[in-house]
Amino acid sequence: MAGSTFGTIFRITTWGESHGKALGVVIDGCPAGLPLEEAHIQSYLDRRKPGRTGISTQRREEDAVEILSGTFEGRTTGTPLMLMVRNTSQISGDYSEIAPTYRPGHADYTFDQKYGFRDYRGGGRSSGRETLGRVAAGAVACRILSRLGVRVWAYTRSIGPVEADLTHFDRDAVLSTPTAMPDRDASEKAVAYLEQVKKECDSAGGSMECLVEGLPAGIGDPVFEKLDANLAKAVMSIGAVKAVEIGDGAMVSCRLGSSNNDPFRMEGSRVVKSSNHAGGILGGISDGDRVIVRAHVKPTPSIFRPQQTVSRQGQNMDLCIKGRHDPVIVPRAVVVMECMCALTVLDAMMINMSARMDSLEEFYRKDRPENPASL
Amino acid sequence: MAGSTFGTIFRITTWGESHGKALGVVIDGCPAGLPLEEAHIQSYLDRRKPGRTGISTQRREEDAVEILSGTFEGRTTGTPLMLMVRNTSQISGDYSEIAPTYRPGHADYTFDQKYGFRDYRGGGRSSGRETLGRVAAGAVACRILSRLGVRVWAYTRSIGPVEADLTHFDRDAVLSTPTAMPDRDASEKAVAYLEQVKKECDSAGGSMECLVEGLPAGIGDPVFEKLDANLAKAVMSIGAVKAVEIGDGAMVSCRLGSSNNDPFRMEGSRVVKSSNHAGGILGGISDGDRVIVRAHVKPTPSIFRPQQTVSRQGQNMDLCIKGRHDPVIVPRAVVVMECMCALTVLDAMMINMSARMDSLEEFYRKDRPENPASL
Amino acid sequence: MAGSTFGTIFRITTWGESHGKALGVVIDGCPAGLPLEEAHIQSYLDRRKPGRTGISTQRREEDAVEILSGTFEGRTTGTPLMLMVRNTSQISGDYSEIAPTYRPGHADYTFDQKYGFRDYRGGGRSSGRETLGRVAAGAVACRILSRLGVRVWAYTRSIGPVEADLTHFDRDAVLSTPTAMPDRDASEKAVAYLEQVKKECDSAGGSMECLVEGLPAGIGDPVFEKLDANLAKAVMSIGAVKAVEIGDGAMVSCRLGSSNNDPFRMEGSRVVKSSNHAGGILGGISDGDRVIVRAHVKPTPSIFRPQQTVSRQGQNMDLCIKGRHDPVIVPRAVVVMECMCALTVLDAMMINMSARMDSLEEFYRKDRPENPASL
Amino acid sequence: MAGSTFGTIFRITTWGESHGKALGVVIDGCPAGLPLEEAHIQSYLDRRKPGRTGISTQRREEDAVEILSGTFEGRTTGTPLMLMVRNTSQISGDYSEIAPTYRPGHADYTFDQKYGFRDYRGGGRSSGRETLGRVAAGAVACRILSRLGVRVWAYTRSIGPVEADLTHFDRDAVLSTPTAMPDRDASEKAVAYLEQVKKECDSAGGSMECLVEGLPAGIGDPVFEKLDANLAKAVMSIGAVKAVEIGDGAMVSCRLGSSNNDPFRMEGSRVVKSSNHAGGILGGISDGDRVIVRAHVKPTPSIFRPQQTVSRQGQNMDLCIKGRHDPVIVPRAVVVMECMCALTVLDAMMINMSARMDSLEEFYRKDRPENPASL
Repeated sequence: MAGSTFGTIFRITTWGESHGKALGVVIDGCPAGLPLEEAHIQSYLDRRKPGRTGISTQRREEDAVEILSGTFEGRTTGTPLMLMVRNTSQISGDYSEIAPTYRPGHADYTFDQKYGFRDYRGGGRSSGRETLGRVAAGAVACRILSRLGVRVWAYTRSIGPVEADLTHFDRDAVLSTPTAMPDRDASEKAVAYLEQVKKECDSAGGSMECLVEGLPAGIGDPVFEKLDANLAKAVMSIGAVKAVEIGDGAMVSCRLGSSNNDPFRMEGSRVVKSSNHAGGILGGISDGDRVIVRAHVKPTPSIFRPQQTVSRQGQNMDLCIKGRHDPVIVPRAVVVMECMCALTVLDAMMINMSARMDSLEEFYRKDRPENPASL
Repeated sequence: MAGSTFGTIFRITTWGESHGKALGVVIDGCPAGLPLEEAHIQSYLDRRKPGRTGISTQRREEDAVEILSGTFEGRTTGTPLMLMVRNTSQISGDYSEIAPTYRPGHADYTFDQKYGFRDYRGGGRSSGRETLGRVAAGAVACRILSRLGVRVWAYTRSIGPVEADLTHFDRDAVLSTPTAMPDRDASEKAVAYLEQVKKECDSAGGSMECLVEGLPAGIGDPVFEKLDANLAKAVMSIGAVKAVEIGDGAMVSCRLGSSNNDPFRMEGSRVVKSSNHAGGILGGISDGDRVIVRAHVKPTPSIFRPQQTVSRQGQNMDLCIKGRHDPVIVPRAVVVMECMCALTVLDAMMINMSARMDSLEEFYRKDRPENPASL
Repeated sequence: MAGSTFGTIFRITTWGESHGKALGVVIDGCPAGLPLEEAHIQSYLDRRKPGRTGISTQRREEDAVEILSGTFEGRTTGTPLMLMVRNTSQISGDYSEIAPTYRPGHADYTFDQKYGFRDYRGGGRSSGRETLGRVAAGAVACRILSRLGVRVWAYTRSIGPVEADLTHFDRDAVLSTPTAMPDRDASEKAVAYLEQVKKECDSAGGSMECLVEGLPAGIGDPVFEKLDANLAKAVMSIGAVKAVEIGDGAMVSCRLGSSNNDPFRMEGSRVVKSSNHAGGILGGISDGDRVIVRAHVKPTPSIFRPQQTVSRQGQNMDLCIKGRHDPVIVPRAVVVMECMCALTVLDAMMINMSARMDSLEEFYRKDRPENPASL
Repeated sequence: MAGSTFGTIFRITTWGESHGKALGVVIDGCPAGLPLEEAHIQSYLDRRKPGRTGISTQRREEDAVEILSGTFEGRTTGTPLMLMVRNTSQISGDYSEIAPTYRPGHADYTFDQKYGFRDYRGGGRSSGRETLGRVAAGAVACRILSRLGVRVWAYTRSIGPVEADLTHFDRDAVLSTPTAMPDRDASEKAVAYLEQVKKECDSAGGSMECLVEGLPAGIGDPVFEKLDANLAKAVMSIGAVKAVEIGDGAMVSCRLGSSNNDPFRMEGSRVVKSSNHAGGILGGISDGDRVIVRAHVKPTPSIFRPQQTVSRQGQNMDLCIKGRHDPVIVPRAVVVMECMCALTVLDAMMINMSARMDSLEEFYRKDRPENPASL
C-alpha cells in the first residue's frame, strides 16, 4: 500500500523523493468548475521554501509548480489534477557519505529494515521535500474551502523556549517573519535563540497551531472517522511531529469537569459556547466554533556535531553530518500543517453531504423529469 | 460513510448504541486457524466494565459477549467474526429529561446539527458503550499479536494531579487496582482524590499510556500511513481523548537535537538505540524498540452540579444531570486504548507482508508446480 | 481483508454462514431520518425465501429480520444499522457426509486451499444464505432510492431454453410466478422444463435482468469507478453468476457502429436517445435513460446423480449429494441482483453530490452565519 | 472521488486527458527490490500504439514513458512509482467542431451532465489515451507476476463476424498480426472485413480474451471481493466494453449441471479438474486452473457518416465526425485488458498473504530476537 494516498472523496496521492527527477501529487475528486491557475498553488509552495532567512537552509530551490492535467480553460474539470515540481538543485554528491550509515533521528535504519535497501540521497521519500505534494494539494483544498466560507491557517506557536504571545495576535507577522510567528517580538527572540543553537552545532524543536474558522457545525463522523481523529492522523503524518492536541489538549488531564466543560449559550438565534476548551469539536463532530489543532515538532535531527551511530555493516562509529540543514523545522512546516488540516476538513465536508435524507432528497428531487420512462 | 470501520486488512466495523438492543463488531480479515473462544474476548470486556469500585458507575452490566459467526470447531475460519453484546440493564427513563437539552461537553448538540435529530438515550452512538465493539475486536487482535511475539498493553499514567511512578513499575497493579495504575501508592492517592472530586459534584481528567513490545522493525509506511499517524488517529478516536503523544511527545518542542536524537549502537549483532525519545518509530516506521503512545483524557463531562446550557428550542437554561457517572474516564478507557493500538499495529503488520519482492517471491514460489498448464 | 464490505459512502458489511447462529449485515452511512421498520426489509427477504413452490428447496426457513441498532423512534439515526436473521432450521447432520470431499462446482476445494480448512456445513460462508445480508441492506437502499425517484427491479429472463417474452411485460408475474418471470406463459413452460430436469437428477441455468429507472444523468465516475464497472462487480459477486452484460451486452461485438450508436434527440426540452443499446450508461456515467444489466447464472452445482471428485485425502472417488437443492438458482437470485444494483446506484449517487463546485457552494453557503468568529 | 484509483495494496492512480500536457500513473505499494527500467514498460505501451497498420489511426504518437520517481539504482524502492507519457502530437484544431455537440456513443453528454462542462478536445479524460496509465502500471504488475510464476496474456477472439480458431493457437500471431488474433488466417479475414467496413464509413465491434496461467489456488476472497467480481470490474472499466464473461460465461445459462460441473481428479499428487467450464474460479477463489476472462467490445463510436444528435444548446442536428479513428477498438484494447487483469490478480495475491495464521506466524516469527525488551 505504501501509504501515499490521503482522503476519501477529495483524495490525494503524492509521489517523488528528495533527489529524484520530480515530486508531485495527483488530486482525484476535486469538484469541477473551480477557477485554478498555477499561481494559486505557487503562493503556498513559496511559504515552505527555504532560503528566506538565515535560519533556513541556503539550498536554493525554485519549486515551480506545473499543472499537467485536470484543468481546461482555467477551470478544474472534475478529473485528476496532476501537480508537479521538478527537482533542479539536488546534488547527490552532498549526501554520498551518509549512504553506509544510519543517521540518528532519521528514517535511514527503518527504511533499510522495511525495504532491504534505501535511496540514501537526502532522505529519499522521507525527506521534507515529500511535503511539496501535500502543500500543492492543500493549496487547492484551501481555495475550495475559502469559497465555502471556511478559512484554515497555521502559525508557529513556539521555538525552543520562546513562545508567541497570542493575545496580541499579528496575522501579517505569520507570513512575513522568518519564524512564521504571529508576534514580531517573540520572532526576534526566537531568531536570536536559533543563532545561538546554530553556533553550538545543534538544532531546536518547537510547536505550531492551526485554526479552522467558519466551519459549520456537523462536520466529522462519530466513532473512527471523528474530525479530531482525522486531524490527528493528518498532522502526525508530518515528519518530526511527535504530539497532537485538540483545543486545550494535554492540559485537560489536570482539569475538573466544571472548568473544562464549555457552557452553551444563545447569542441571538445562534447557539454559541461561552468558552472553547473543546477546540470546536464535540464527539468527533464540529460544533461551529473555531477548530484548534496544535502540534509539537522535534528538533531537526541533522546536527553538525559528531554523533554515535552504527554502519550498515553493523559497526559502531561516529558520524559527522555536513551540508545545509535548518536549525528548526517549524517555520517551514507551518504551511504543511495548514494544508493537511485543510485537506482533512474539506474531505469531511464532502462526506457529510449525504448524512441526512432531507439533504439527499433536496439534492436529487429538484428539476427532475416527472415521469421516468416506463417499461 | 458514518465512520464505523477501522483498518485496511484486519478491518473492523462496530455498531450499536447505548440504549439499543445490542452492540457489537464485525471483524473482517481475521486470519483463518486462530483458536478463539468467547472467554478470550470476555476477559478484555471485563476490564472496561463498571462497578468494580466506588470510583466507577454502579450501573451493573453483564456485557457477555457472543460469537455469532466466523468460527468453526473452535477456530476462526477466515470469514467475518461477529461479536455481540446484548444490552440488558438500560433503563431509558434515566435519561429522558436530557432529551430536550444539550449537555455541555457531550455530543448532543453536534449530533443534532449533523443528523437533524438524535437518539438522546444515554448518548446513543457517542456513549462510552460504543467501545464494547472496539474492545471485543481488540481482544482478537491482541491474541493474534501475542502469537507473533508482540505484546500491547496500556495503563493509567495520571489522574488529576496524581502521577504513577513508572520507575517502580508494578504490572499486576494495572489489572488489580481500581485506577489501572502500575503503582499501588499512586493509585490509593488517586482514589482519595477522586472521592474528594465526587464530593464536590465534579469530575477529573487523566492520562494513559500504551506500550507495544516485541514489534519488529519495518512496520508502518512512509508518508500518510505512518505507524504513529495511524496510532494517533486510533487513540484520538476514543471519546474524551484530547491529545496524543508518541515517545517523548510534546516535550520535544523544548529539546535540542543533540539530546533528542537516539544514538544507534550495536548490541552483539543487533542494532539498538541507547535511548528511546522517539518512542520506537522513525519516519513513521517501527525501529524495533518499544513503541510508546500517550493520551490525555478530559474530565467526565457529566457532572452533578448545575450547568448553563441551551435547550433544543433555543432557550438559555440550567441543567442538572442525574444518574450514575464515573468521576474519571481513564481507568475504563485504558483497555480501549490498548485495543485500538493493537488493531493498528496488527493491520500494519499485515500490510507490511508485501513490502519486498523477496518476501513475495518466497511466499509464492515454494511448493509451486513446475509447469503451469500451457494453452 | 476477507471482502465482506461493499460500497464507499453507503457501505455494507455482511457476516454469517449457512449453519452458524445467525447472519446479517451492518449498514454504515445510511442517511439519518429515513422511516424504517422491519416489515420494509422483510418483504425483500421473503422474495429470496425457498419453499414457495415445487421448484425450490423444501427447507423451511423463517428468515425473520431484526433491527438491532441504528433506528430511534422509527427513523434511521445516521449511525450503523445492524440487521440480523437467526438461523433456525439448519441441521448440520444433513451435510456431514460432504465434509471429507470436494463437491464439483462448489467452493469446497478453493476454501480449503485458501484457509487450510473450512466450515463444511452447507457451504459455510459460500452458501446462498450469505445473500441474506445483501438483501436486507438492499431493501434499505431501494427504500431510499424510491424517495429519490429511482426504481430498481429485476426479473428472470430465461431458464434453460425457455425465454420470457419481454414485449408483453407483466410486472405482477415477476412477484407472483414461481420463476420470477414477467411472462406467465413462459413461466409455466419453465416450470415444466424444471420438473423434467429434476426427474433426471439434474439442474438448470438461466439469466436475469435488472432495470434502473428514473436515474438522473451524471451518476458514476470516469475511469475505474464507472457505473457499469461497479454494477459488473456487484452482480458478478453473486455466487453462480458467470457473465454480466450492460445494455445490448455481448451482442455489440457483432455490430456496426452505425447501428450500435444511439442517436440523441430533443424531446421538448429534454435530451433523449432514440434507442438504448448502451443500456443507459456512456463513458461510465448514467445518461438519464433506463440502465439495463443482465446476468447469466450457472446451473445449481448440487445435483443428485453420482459425480467424479476427489477426497481431502487425495483419492479419486464418486460423490452422491443428498439433501434439498433448488434445480435452478435464478428465481431466488433475482432479488439479490436487484439489491446489489440498488446498493451500487445509491452509493454512486451519494458520491456524485460533491462533483461540482456549484453544488458544493449551494450546499454549504445557505443559511451560514455571515461572520465566523474572528481571532 | 472521481474514480481514478484501482487496487488495495498494489494501488494505482491514473491521471491525464487526451489533449493535456501529459498522462501517467502513480503506483503505490509496489514491492521494493524489483529491477525496473523504462524499456520494460515501453514494450507494453508500444502494443497499444496506433499506426502499425492500415486498420488503426494514423495519428503518430511516440508515447515514450519516463520513470519520474520510485526507483534507485535500477530497482524499485517501495515508494511510489510515477510513470509519465508526454502528449506530443495532439492538435486541438482537429476536434474543435465537436465542442458544441454531443457525439452519439461517446461520453460528451454524460460529462456535461455530471460536471457542468467538459474538456471537449478528443474526449478528454474519456479518451482511449486514458489507458496509457493503466498499461504502464500493468506492465509493472506483469513483471512482478512473472517472477511469481504467473503469466497473464490476452488476445483478440473475434472482430465482427470473424472468429479466431483457438484450436490451432499461434502465440506469435498475437503480437505480430495487426488484429492481435492468435490465428493468422482469421486475422487476414478480419483485416479484409475491416477494410470493407471502413469503405462504408462504419466501424466494427469484437471480442477479446485474457488468460491467467500459473495462478495458485486460493487467490480471491469470498463474497464481494471475489476474484471474478474484481476481474469483471477491472475489464468493464475499459471504455467500450459492454459484457464480461468468466470461463464458459453466458453459455452456462443454457447448460445442465451435469455437463457444467467440472469433476475433480487426482493427477499424481495434484488435484486437477477434468474440464474448466468454471474458468479457474470457484466461489470467487482461484482453483489453480487457468483463469479465463472474456470481454465484448462495442464498435468505435466515431464513424464517418452523418449521425443524428443534439447540440449543447438543445437543437436537433446532424453531425459528421472527421479526423482519424480506428475502425475497431479491440486490437489496441487487448493489452489494456491484459494489464487490468494483471493488476487485479497481483493485488489479490498480496491481500491473500495474511489469510492464514500459519503464514502470518511463519512470516513474523523467524529470526526474531527471543526476548523483546522488558519494561
